[in-house]
Amino acid sequence: MTSLRVLGVDPGLTRCGVGVVDVARDRSAALVHVGVVRSDVELPIERRLATIAAGLRAVIAEHQPHVVAVERVFAQHNRSTVMGTAQASGIALLVAAESGLDAATHTPSEVKAAITGYGSAEKLQVQTMVARVLRLDSLPQPADAADALALAICHAWRRGVGGPASSSGTAALTPAQRAWADAERLARR
Amino acid sequence: MTSLRVLGVDPGLTRCGVGVVDVARDRSAALVHVGVVRSDVELPIERRLATIAAGLRAVIAEHQPHVVAVERVFAQHNRSTVMGTAQASGIALLVAAESGLDAATHTPSEVKAAITGYGSAEKLQVQTMVARVLRLDSLPQPADAADALALAICHAWRRGVGGPASSSGTAALTPAQRAWADAERLARR
Repeated sequence: MTSLRVLGVDPGLTRCGVGVVDVARDRSAALVHVGVVRSDVELPIERRLATIAAGLRAVIAEHQPHVVAVERVFAQHNRSTVMGTAQASGIALLVAAESGLDAATHTPSEVKAAITGYGSAEKLQVQTMVARVLRLDSLPQPADAADALALAICHAWRRGVGGPASSSGTAALTPAQRAWADAERLARR
Repeated sequence: MTSLRVLGVDPGLTRCGVGVVDVARDRSAALVHVGVVRSDVELPIERRLATIAAGLRAVIAEHQPHVVAVERVFAQHNRSTVMGTAQASGIALLVAAESGLDAATHTPSEVKAAITGYGSAEKLQVQTMVARVLRLDSLPQPADAADALALAICHAWRRGVGGPASSSGTAALTPAQRAWADAERLARR
């Protein structure tokens, strides 16, 4: 393949960000699709999850990504919604597997580090860099889907699309992050 | 229908307890199926979730429950595995919806209160009561599937299978639990 097509998923029950990018061997990236899969807060939880699953399956069917990258959810974040976010992330991973695709998870700080070189970057910095990387005229819209694009770009760069890009793909990582990346690679062999 | 067939799911990534019971109008309950859906810890997370989904779909196809009850997962519990548990619960809810079934969640203390009359009951007390309710000669095996059976029985009793059983189905609840049950009923109309 000349480029890697990645679907990034920023999981959420009410709004689930999705971004599809093509990343070439030289690390350049092109926007394929960006959007949000929504579920109605009035629906029972099982129907909401089914809506998310159907929306993600539609994106995969239309854009045929090679791999799915999902933001890793942590228990300590934002307690009131974290369980719904975790469930939505599980749905994204399941839909990937049932579509015959590999999946991977990345933490928010891994994504920020990969995109901006700085693991604690502000949202606007990430959006600005995503727009620059994808050569967009303005910030990605909707704004909350920019994270999904960042995740997709991060995944391709960290996995090292192409040969010489491999090392630079993890160059922005701290030693701890690099150790994590190595451990993750080993775990997924 | 003369009885309600409930699939109870005690969500877990490594071991997901499943229990199917038939609960009659007089609140008597009969064991239909009990078991555990396992996923290999060596597999990547998306494959593990797909294994859980396939296992749950097989149980639904074989035993044709009317409704699925899933244990509600809380962020503060057992941090290291809670995300996997939350993801597995999301899968159980999704599989219910995609099988055309309603789903409901109950907290561990709601289950304990419904089964033993005491929201902080010990595991052995719950297992003992489940065995008694189902008229089993010994405690349910595997032991960790007893929670799934308790959940299924709890669901039928709290939903009030049949007419006169309705009130007694919530008789063991505290006022707060009853208020919760009423709110839940309203929310699901």
